[in-house]
Amino acid sequence: MRGTAEFIFTGDELLRGDTINTNQAYLGEGLLDVGVFPTHALTVTDDREAIAAAIGTALERRPDVLLISGGLGPTEDDLTREAVGDALGRSLVHREDLLDQIRARFAQLGIPMGDSNRKQALIPDGSTPMPFSGTAPGFWLIEGDTLLAALPGVPRELRQMWTDTLRPLVLTHLRGHENDETGVVVRRLRVHGMGESTLAEVLRDIPWRGSGVDVGTRAALDGITVILRAQPDPAARIRLARMEEQIRDILGTKIYGTGDDDLAAVVGSLLRDRGLTVATAESCTGGLLAKRLTDTPGSSDYFVGGVVAYSDALKTSLLGVDPALLAAHGSVSQEVARAMVEGVRDRLGADCALSTTGIAGPGGGHPDKPVGLVYVGAAIGAQVQVRRFTLFRTRDEIRERTAQAAFDILRRGLLDPLDK
Amino acid sequence: MRGTAEFIFTGDELLRGDTINTNQAYLGEGLLDVGVFPTHALTVTDDREAIAAAIGTALERRPDVLLISGGLGPTEDDLTREAVGDALGRSLVHREDLLDQIRARFAQLGIPMGDSNRKQALIPDGSTPMPFSGTAPGFWLIEGDTLLAALPGVPRELRQMWTDTLRPLVLTHLRGHENDETGVVVRRLRVHGMGESTLAEVLRDIPWRGSGVDVGTRAALDGITVILRAQPDPAARIRLARMEEQIRDILGTKIYGTGDDDLAAVVGSLLRDRGLTVATAESCTGGLLAKRLTDTPGSSDYFVGGVVAYSDALKTSLLGVDPALLAAHGSVSQEVARAMVEGVRDRLGADCALSTTGIAGPGGGHPDKPVGLVYVGAAIGAQVQVRRFTLFRTRDEIRERTAQAAFDILRRGLLDPLDK
Repeated sequence: MRGTAEFIFTGDELLRGDTINTNQAYLGEGLLDVGVFPTHALTVTDDREAIAAAIGTALERRPDVLLISGGLGPTEDDLTREAVGDALGRSLVHREDLLDQIRARFAQLGIPMGDSNRKQALIPDGSTPMPFSGTAPGFWLIEGDTLLAALPGVPRELRQMWTDTLRPLVLTHLRGHENDETGVVVRRLRVHGMGESTLAEVLRDIPWRGSGVDVGTRAALDGITVILRAQPDPAARIRLARMEEQIRDILGTKIYGTGDDDLAAVVGSLLRDRGLTVATAESCTGGLLAKRLTDTPGSSDYFVGGVVAYSDALKTSLLGVDPALLAAHGSVSQEVARAMVEGVRDRLGADCALSTTGIAGPGGGHPDKPVGLVYVGAAIGAQVQVRRFTLFRTRDEIRERTAQAAFDILRRGLLDPLDK
Repeated sequence: MRGTAEFIFTGDELLRGDTINTNQAYLGEGLLDVGVFPTHALTVTDDREAIAAAIGTALERRPDVLLISGGLGPTEDDLTREAVGDALGRSLVHREDLLDQIRARFAQLGIPMGDSNRKQALIPDGSTPMPFSGTAPGFWLIEGDTLLAALPGVPRELRQMWTDTLRPLVLTHLRGHENDETGVVVRRLRVHGMGESTLAEVLRDIPWRGSGVDVGTRAALDGITVILRAQPDPAARIRLARMEEQIRDILGTKIYGTGDDDLAAVVGSLLRDRGLTVATAESCTGGLLAKRLTDTPGSSDYFVGGVVAYSDALKTSLLGVDPALLAAHGSVSQEVARAMVEGVRDRLGADCALSTTGIAGPGGGHPDKPVGLVYVGAAIGAQVQVRRFTLFRTRDEIRERTAQAAFDILRRGLLDPLDK
């Protein structure tokens, strides 16, 4: 790795469990992308001495970058400015230009500025303020070989400050005492339809040791992500590209996207490219398919609408499912999933359709139809297929996995209409 | 506060941003509930020396509890056992009984146990193993005045070990060198329909300084939570109860629940209590209302179903909205929201109904109908009301806030049918 970084997060809300720290993952990923590897991330209580001591301890390890987040607000619990001053033996200076900017910000929001906000115009002597989108200016300074920067704790403000100001600063700082190579290359491949252990076996056959490329996987409800990371060196990058090719050869269409691609959005793009529309008929997913499809802006181009038919009566009245079919097979059955998907396709006049019916639990299971039994129907024009799944764990997980399975069936059908 | 705690989390995945650390918030909340306040939470890279150094530094501050999470797996990056041994000058001992349990666990999962798993049967000399649900035994020991415990990093396994074994241990440990008072009392009040600044003004009038009660707020998409925390002393607890009463007097039905109550589930309980059913007709929320209602197990008792009518044609064919109305007022209008809610109530045969139509963005805005303009319709029997909202920020936020607003209108209507 090329550089090292440490984080200090202030805020009792993070220690008490009121707030989950999402800034750590965000900054960690951002630093890694510019070739800096974080080694320590400390969350410390809102105590001036404790924060100053933490800064001192971190600086002793001489990281290239030390980021402090939080504690730049106007309250008496906001102590980062003071603690940085204490740790470095620097006084705080009042910056009238910052105060003007803070005032302007309040005026813009139409809120009167309180007296307490005046202290947000203080920064440590010799530091440089960073442009801010909230009311908390950040600042940075060089101490020894370390670039020390203080950022607000509000994720939106922190992210903007990172992107606009701090990321370029980190790159410049590192260039100052090393060569000009850019950072670690990260490649994420999103996979559906494969267990983590099977995938691990596939990856085990790829000779990654000593290649300068790290391979890892992350399993989540939306599938598995393969993460490839190449050290900042051209040879490692070439090897990464080759490994990605190898993995793609093996996994084929099991890879549905890269980076943060969302499966529902991938399906949406395929539909848009082909000029097709889709409708949904949901029982156990209760609106989740429609919600996921419409998470994407512009989804009205291909999503016409959907029906959540939770009761049997509505399966008949809204989707035209024959009551005799419901009586003969029960609502959680291959036959009803098929009738639902055909019904919604025809009644809503869509080219494609998806249906779900199952038992999401925790109640409602029977010995022959246990919790987790789910049927998913998919129609592409006149082609209809229904698949049966047995899913595990919580209601949420069963519903999320059902949605992913449904989207993936449609995705594969659109990629290869004959692949049934 | 009665006791202090520190956390050490191991795992490069937490520093690289591959995984968000949810264990910190979980353990923080759990410790606070037994009267222990965490002061430091360090995430440290998978390096034996760095982890051992972190343990040493933490012990120097003499916390009552030191929890280490992660690094108990079978891989060469799993170094917590070794690092604890190094930091405390204790050797690792092999426990055949633990190996038997690990073997049994693999047999139960139907997976062959690898050789690497043998090292999971090692624990530091003088420590006690903790029962485990995965394949990683935890362990605990007393060092000086500190209860040191090592837990797996997998959230499900960590949570079970905390609940079943560690929480009782922490209580016993604290009782050992202090009196028997139980922990901090935390009370969370969930509020909808009030801005954070207005709420802050209300809370400012309550004399909490020196009362032994902390008052804070947390704003999120689902509203604001007022958090009251009483020190572990009987007088503070009585004051907390009085303050809660005061706050309830002022906020009235703006408080929709306590703890982690979900507004959609609260509405569901009200419907069930009254023997009423509900249906949804969604445009801009695209299935989110139905999804939220069906997140709750047993929601089929009151939720009959819903329609996502994204296109104008479906608003007419599925909900019976008059095309003339759509032509005259546009789909984002008070008139259409009313027609949608009446249509879905009648066609799906529900007692109550909700409808949404609006512009969630980022595209689709016009000068007279900007992004964030939303109409919500609510019907309770023949009583219908439609409200207009102007919401901000991202598509996600606009949709989530619309859903909360819709549920709250129905909730208030059910509490007081005359309050229109």
